[in-house]
Amino acid sequence: MHRTLLYGAQVVNSASTQTADVLIENGRVVAVGELAAIVGENCERIDVRGKLLVPGGVDVHTHLESPLNGAPTADDFESGTIAAACGGTTTIVDFAAQVKGQTLLDALAVHHDKARGRAVIDYGFHMCVTDLVSGKLAEFAEVVQSGVSSFKVFMAYRGTLMVNDGELFDVLRTAGRLGGQVCVHAENGDVIDRLASDLVAEGRTGPKSHLLSRPPETEVEAVVRAIAIADMADAPIYFVHLSTQGSVEAVAEARHRNASVAGETCTHYLTLDPSLYDQPGFKAGEVVLTPPLREKVHRDALWRGLTTGDVSVVSSDHCPYCLAEKERLGAHDFREIPNGGPGIEHRMSLLYGEGVRGGRISLEKYVELTAAAPAKQFGLYPKKGVIAAGSDADIVVLDPAGETVISAATQNQRLDYTPYEGWVLPGRIEQVFSRGDLIAASGTYVGARGRGNYLPRATV
Amino acid sequence: MHRTLLYGAQVVNSASTQTADVLIENGRVVAVGELAAIVGENCERIDVRGKLLVPGGVDVHTHLESPLNGAPTADDFESGTIAAACGGTTTIVDFAAQVKGQTLLDALAVHHDKARGRAVIDYGFHMCVTDLVSGKLAEFAEVVQSGVSSFKVFMAYRGTLMVNDGELFDVLRTAGRLGGQVCVHAENGDVIDRLASDLVAEGRTGPKSHLLSRPPETEVEAVVRAIAIADMADAPIYFVHLSTQGSVEAVAEARHRNASVAGETCTHYLTLDPSLYDQPGFKAGEVVLTPPLREKVHRDALWRGLTTGDVSVVSSDHCPYCLAEKERLGAHDFREIPNGGPGIEHRMSLLYGEGVRGGRISLEKYVELTAAAPAKQFGLYPKKGVIAAGSDADIVVLDPAGETVISAATQNQRLDYTPYEGWVLPGRIEQVFSRGDLIAASGTYVGARGRGNYLPRATV
Amino acid sequence: MHRTLLYGAQVVNSASTQTADVLIENGRVVAVGELAAIVGENCERIDVRGKLLVPGGVDVHTHLESPLNGAPTADDFESGTIAAACGGTTTIVDFAAQVKGQTLLDALAVHHDKARGRAVIDYGFHMCVTDLVSGKLAEFAEVVQSGVSSFKVFMAYRGTLMVNDGELFDVLRTAGRLGGQVCVHAENGDVIDRLASDLVAEGRTGPKSHLLSRPPETEVEAVVRAIAIADMADAPIYFVHLSTQGSVEAVAEARHRNASVAGETCTHYLTLDPSLYDQPGFKAGEVVLTPPLREKVHRDALWRGLTTGDVSVVSSDHCPYCLAEKERLGAHDFREIPNGGPGIEHRMSLLYGEGVRGGRISLEKYVELTAAAPAKQFGLYPKKGVIAAGSDADIVVLDPAGETVISAATQNQRLDYTPYEGWVLPGRIEQVFSRGDLIAASGTYVGARGRGNYLPRATV
Amino acid sequence: MHRTLLYGAQVVNSASTQTADVLIENGRVVAVGELAAIVGENCERIDVRGKLLVPGGVDVHTHLESPLNGAPTADDFESGTIAAACGGTTTIVDFAAQVKGQTLLDALAVHHDKARGRAVIDYGFHMCVTDLVSGKLAEFAEVVQSGVSSFKVFMAYRGTLMVNDGELFDVLRTAGRLGGQVCVHAENGDVIDRLASDLVAEGRTGPKSHLLSRPPETEVEAVVRAIAIADMADAPIYFVHLSTQGSVEAVAEARHRNASVAGETCTHYLTLDPSLYDQPGFKAGEVVLTPPLREKVHRDALWRGLTTGDVSVVSSDHCPYCLAEKERLGAHDFREIPNGGPGIEHRMSLLYGEGVRGGRISLEKYVELTAAAPAKQFGLYPKKGVIAAGSDADIVVLDPAGETVISAATQNQRLDYTPYEGWVLPGRIEQVFSRGDLIAASGTYVGARGRGNYLPRATV
Repeated sequence: MHRTLLYGAQVVNSASTQTADVLIENGRVVAVGELAAIVGENCERIDVRGKLLVPGGVDVHTHLESPLNGAPTADDFESGTIAAACGGTTTIVDFAAQVKGQTLLDALAVHHDKARGRAVIDYGFHMCVTDLVSGKLAEFAEVVQSGVSSFKVFMAYRGTLMVNDGELFDVLRTAGRLGGQVCVHAENGDVIDRLASDLVAEGRTGPKSHLLSRPPETEVEAVVRAIAIADMADAPIYFVHLSTQGSVEAVAEARHRNASVAGETCTHYLTLDPSLYDQPGFKAGEVVLTPPLREKVHRDALWRGLTTGDVSVVSSDHCPYCLAEKERLGAHDFREIPNGGPGIEHRMSLLYGEGVRGGRISLEKYVELTAAAPAKQFGLYPKKGVIAAGSDADIVVLDPAGETVISAATQNQRLDYTPYEGWVLPGRIEQVFSRGDLIAASGTYVGARGRGNYLPRATV
Repeated sequence: MHRTLLYGAQVVNSASTQTADVLIENGRVVAVGELAAIVGENCERIDVRGKLLVPGGVDVHTHLESPLNGAPTADDFESGTIAAACGGTTTIVDFAAQVKGQTLLDALAVHHDKARGRAVIDYGFHMCVTDLVSGKLAEFAEVVQSGVSSFKVFMAYRGTLMVNDGELFDVLRTAGRLGGQVCVHAENGDVIDRLASDLVAEGRTGPKSHLLSRPPETEVEAVVRAIAIADMADAPIYFVHLSTQGSVEAVAEARHRNASVAGETCTHYLTLDPSLYDQPGFKAGEVVLTPPLREKVHRDALWRGLTTGDVSVVSSDHCPYCLAEKERLGAHDFREIPNGGPGIEHRMSLLYGEGVRGGRISLEKYVELTAAAPAKQFGLYPKKGVIAAGSDADIVVLDPAGETVISAATQNQRLDYTPYEGWVLPGRIEQVFSRGDLIAASGTYVGARGRGNYLPRATV
Repeated sequence: MHRTLLYGAQVVNSASTQTADVLIENGRVVAVGELAAIVGENCERIDVRGKLLVPGGVDVHTHLESPLNGAPTADDFESGTIAAACGGTTTIVDFAAQVKGQTLLDALAVHHDKARGRAVIDYGFHMCVTDLVSGKLAEFAEVVQSGVSSFKVFMAYRGTLMVNDGELFDVLRTAGRLGGQVCVHAENGDVIDRLASDLVAEGRTGPKSHLLSRPPETEVEAVVRAIAIADMADAPIYFVHLSTQGSVEAVAEARHRNASVAGETCTHYLTLDPSLYDQPGFKAGEVVLTPPLREKVHRDALWRGLTTGDVSVVSSDHCPYCLAEKERLGAHDFREIPNGGPGIEHRMSLLYGEGVRGGRISLEKYVELTAAAPAKQFGLYPKKGVIAAGSDADIVVLDPAGETVISAATQNQRLDYTPYEGWVLPGRIEQVFSRGDLIAASGTYVGARGRGNYLPRATV
Repeated sequence: MHRTLLYGAQVVNSASTQTADVLIENGRVVAVGELAAIVGENCERIDVRGKLLVPGGVDVHTHLESPLNGAPTADDFESGTIAAACGGTTTIVDFAAQVKGQTLLDALAVHHDKARGRAVIDYGFHMCVTDLVSGKLAEFAEVVQSGVSSFKVFMAYRGTLMVNDGELFDVLRTAGRLGGQVCVHAENGDVIDRLASDLVAEGRTGPKSHLLSRPPETEVEAVVRAIAIADMADAPIYFVHLSTQGSVEAVAEARHRNASVAGETCTHYLTLDPSLYDQPGFKAGEVVLTPPLREKVHRDALWRGLTTGDVSVVSSDHCPYCLAEKERLGAHDFREIPNGGPGIEHRMSLLYGEGVRGGRISLEKYVELTAAAPAKQFGLYPKKGVIAAGSDADIVVLDPAGETVISAATQNQRLDYTPYEGWVLPGRIEQVFSRGDLIAASGTYVGARGRGNYLPRATV
């Protein structure tokens, strides 16, 4: 039996911060408190005085080795989870995406194969449904029983990913009856397609048209509609990557009447400005991600939503494509640029630096947004998302006196750019423990290969 | 030159009521006031003392000889307009419905043929669009130029009539740019189809399932969505047959921010209770019309909306099918019952009796709802909808001391039932003038055959 | 019997515009229409072809010879109504203001004495209540019976005019039960007094502090509160001089649920910018009126409110003090400047020029805001506010091709300034008829002295 | 050094529940976790397997030996805190009420004298301000420095307790600048006084008139107004004893825009029905408390507000008067009945039984509402409100298998009735620890006399 005592830090959980020691045994936290004098000699002691201990990050929106956008994403489960680990994230929930015609269980098996033995942190899956014909709903029960208790659908991308309102209703109702939930990409794809066609017809084929073809209202309408359909289906709903003020307001209205509605946003919607679409040449292609970046009024609304709880989760939507690849496919028509950007590695640092140190959120709220709330939302709490007796010893040692420099040259993400190039953030993630194992130190992966475990998730 | 003086009545317009004489010449009103002493001898004088003169009704939602629901409706342009005339309606705007594959102009020509020489009152058309493929949008300009400045689309009935959100956006934008407007049937057809299938699967195939498969939320969602899409298209929108409180609220919210959004309701949503779906046997099939009848809370909201202006038009949605025909087609599956009910003949009497005499609306509001507002909304004002110098002499002589009895046996509508069987209403429509001609007296048509004129309508 | 025919103009009413002749007999309109050929020889004919005939203006918010602010206002009933007449206003409703300790009936008698034989246009009174102790509520019935069916109270000016919430409730309930209504000056006077004291304590004693001490929220709070109290009292309420977006929204919300709530704004809130408070020296004192002028966002909301009907009346709040007088009293402390500005003369021209010709409102809406709606609101319709058979022949001949220049040097208002100095507006009021008498021509009064009649007003 | 280990329970905090042991040393919790094997022999061990450990209750709204309502309340600091302790509450914040004319510091000293040496649990004070004349605001800083960081004002009870809007603004602004906060009793006292006078005038002098004179709108108006005034003062605000749906909605609206607004409700507003006002004789006087009990629609809204967080604290508003005393004073006029009821003893049991076991809230939410949130709101967290290393060892041992019977005969509250007479609730509070001392067992006080400490509270 190996025991480790992290002693002398500030232990931060979503409900409170305390000066305490954390005792780890067999990969789990077994006690929190003034333990130095109590534990005997048979215990490794690590001095973390002056540091913050926060629960390992839980990133519930990643696309590793994803086939969704035609071209596969640049990170596989090995490179992606290594980047995650170095950035303080110890759990991900990725998407098991169905290819048209495929059964859901087959799609799930394919993704298990991609992750098994390659992921270095613990992982789960959302079942991403793109084709509902011929009995796919009947598979939902088996999917949920296998620990995949959430489903993802798209209200955009007609012809490839999009479901219509009836299918959305079916998915919500079927998942809801099983105790599962549905993650929705909310954009009115049909209107977007019209606006995009118009822009191409006018010869405006460059990356900025991605922004112009997706005005805020295209998101808000879909959010409002999906909430109405979820009400009719009497089922919970979770919105991925909200980017607009109107969406926050729609979720708030629903939450006020105690509807089971939750909203997520992503690091880049909180931190990046749409002026990036004005970068010269194809460089703007870096931020061709969906929904697009939004003006300050929307970012302010998202930060406010984090405070009020109307936006309850911050994920990365890590969906990386090298800029060269983006340009190769979409240089002549922005509609062909694979949508997506990186994020898995810097989510924890960005939200700490911009959020906590920027005076926008408290330390406790930081933990809630990056770990506790996503873990609760997706059936992983209190195994993940909290530093408490009985929980997995997934712990990040964060030095508030340090700093983090972001650069494509030094990142672990397998990508030729980062939209945060040159950013310097207060705070530094020094060490990362996963189930008690030290797996990252000073931004370098130091753990074993393929050590990640599949996480079957509970229903809610 | 023939001159007629209706003297001594209360002349009611939407803005005010005055005791005055009305002088008619060549089918037009030429003066209103104290005229008895001024006009010379060469003038027919009709004593209407103690009566109300109201503008002839303008019914902007009728389906005469309509092919829309598979089976043709029971009234053609002759029988339907005779029923209208006897009930005090002197103008209709019917739907020129496109059959799949047909060009819009061809569809329009077909409907002109149906009406010409048969209608006994003046008539216009909305262009009902059901198939947008291959260049139909390009026809819109010609349609508008021909005096058909409004378009109708359906958000329900997938596979036959329904347009998707992108098509709705296209129609709104195209019509809007031409100064036209779009009439929308707002229901979430996809969700309704699911609910209907469920009911059939449970063996609930009778007429009441029509009600159960169309809960209020299926309408409200579509109204909210269509307003959002109209906003994105920067185009005006008009909702036909609103039936729910939530719809009224959605329209009110849009109107408050000065969006060009208007809402219509129909007589039956104001007056009939959904307990009619509990009638024995197939009798409930009488009220299989869409949307279905609603509970009192919704009727109250509609009446309130009439007062506040958030619902601005009351139409009949006259879409008659004999009960025998309904039963023949839908006895075994409520989804096969042709949707629709009568209304063109009793709209004016019902709204006067239930609204004005029921203490819910003023006389002026009555005129606004039945004549002035629909005429303004659809480019017919002040030719129609007002008793004023320069307007067509379309005038109803209403005796407030009389009464109206409704019965299938005596109605002019070509139908084997009326949902108002046996109703007795205060007020009686005694005489109806169309362009100065007396065309109905005491509920009997006394005018010439086929005297109606086509009304090309202005853009807005 | 004298008969006059105004022939060939566009006759504009709130509901419609028609080309017609207007026949006047004994001070009343007796017919409207194509009358030239019908009326015989015994009739004066006035050629008004190419002109607009609009109903004489009804200004329901004026303060003539008013003692309310300590110093009397600069216009008495003679000079004030002459200015009104020259500007196209043929009816006013002024305030009969109670002095502390005075009975309401005594106060009313004093104001009748001021107006009788001096006013040149017809006039009515609101009863302005400032002191409710000892049985004043018991006088309400007699006040109403005498034709004064509206009461005015202030939610600001503690110690002089302000009523507390309980008194407001009493006034609303008592008036409401009598079929009367209550006009409310809505500002949170107590908070304003604090903010004003702070500014003085900081040495900021100049006119601009008037603006700073009355932020928009001080109005909005009072509007919201008064609506709630009117709801509890189950009584109608009318807000004078609304100036903010929030107030418009509060009224709209109440109107949507069909509460009897109406809002008025004034010409200056629609047209003047608060940058006028930055004028040098004491010149900013010109616009020390209450509430203060507001930023564009509020003006836009007011214009939008006029369109949607949430603001239904435009009055002048004519409350003039010479700048010299303002400075004499308030040079050292802005709180001592008598609050008020001019407006009775140019309301009709300004709203036509800025509103109709500025593309913000239709001609019909112009008539509604300046004549029809105020007449309806205060029990004067259809005697006033409309050109129709049976109504008083109060008619303005407006030349759309003319123009109006505003200047203190040429105005009829008895004042040493106008905030519109040098403004040039499209449109010119050429002739003004009151009960068939030509009383103003080209901006000069040409009528008899003291010809105005007291207008007892109906309850609602 | 004395150490105690409570082992084997479910430890419930607001963020999570875990099976763990709790180690107590010197009155503080020093560790939580699997500790049985680690702590040595020198430790008392208490077996709490199968039990719930929840943080000792924090009741922030009590009136012990209060002079506010004329008659003193029936419980003093000894009897009241003993009742609290037996019911699982280990901290109270009572009101130091100013008598007219008294300085705040004098009022505070009086209340310190009442509590010192008599309270058996820890206590703090809100400063209750009733008289602001002559420099009372200047005392606020000293009050805050002494650990009294919250102020209480009343918007009702003109002549005794009520402040006007200007005073409310002053208090909010002054407190806010000091980092303090203001607790507001929100009712429109002036309107209530009118309604009450009316009832008396009609001869309706019995207890039920208390209900009739305080309709829900009288509370909602005041809440809306106070939020607006707090906005203008740029200060936080906390509403005591909210009882209506409209209030919950007003707080929710403010919270959504991230205003610093919080709302409290009390046990009786969640559990008791206004039909109690229909009890015969004077028995209805038992529930003459303010605001009155409300209909189910309001109770449902309050429960929903607890879930959504719009109502964040449940207090007792313990303000007991014997029924005999109530009757003696108010038998002939309900306005003379001292307002208030009991609650300090059964708050924890009722919310557990009705809330948690009634399926309305989770265990974690229970802890949040009764302990964590009030402690955070009033600057006592994490010293109070949580079971975690470093916190005071204020711990309730709750047996979910037990039951609680409420009866006047057995209660510790010094009162001749309880409105919950005969209620039987699931769950039983077995032991209560305060700073590590066992002070109550099976509903009997077993601790030392006068052991409570004054709790100076932090600003926020």
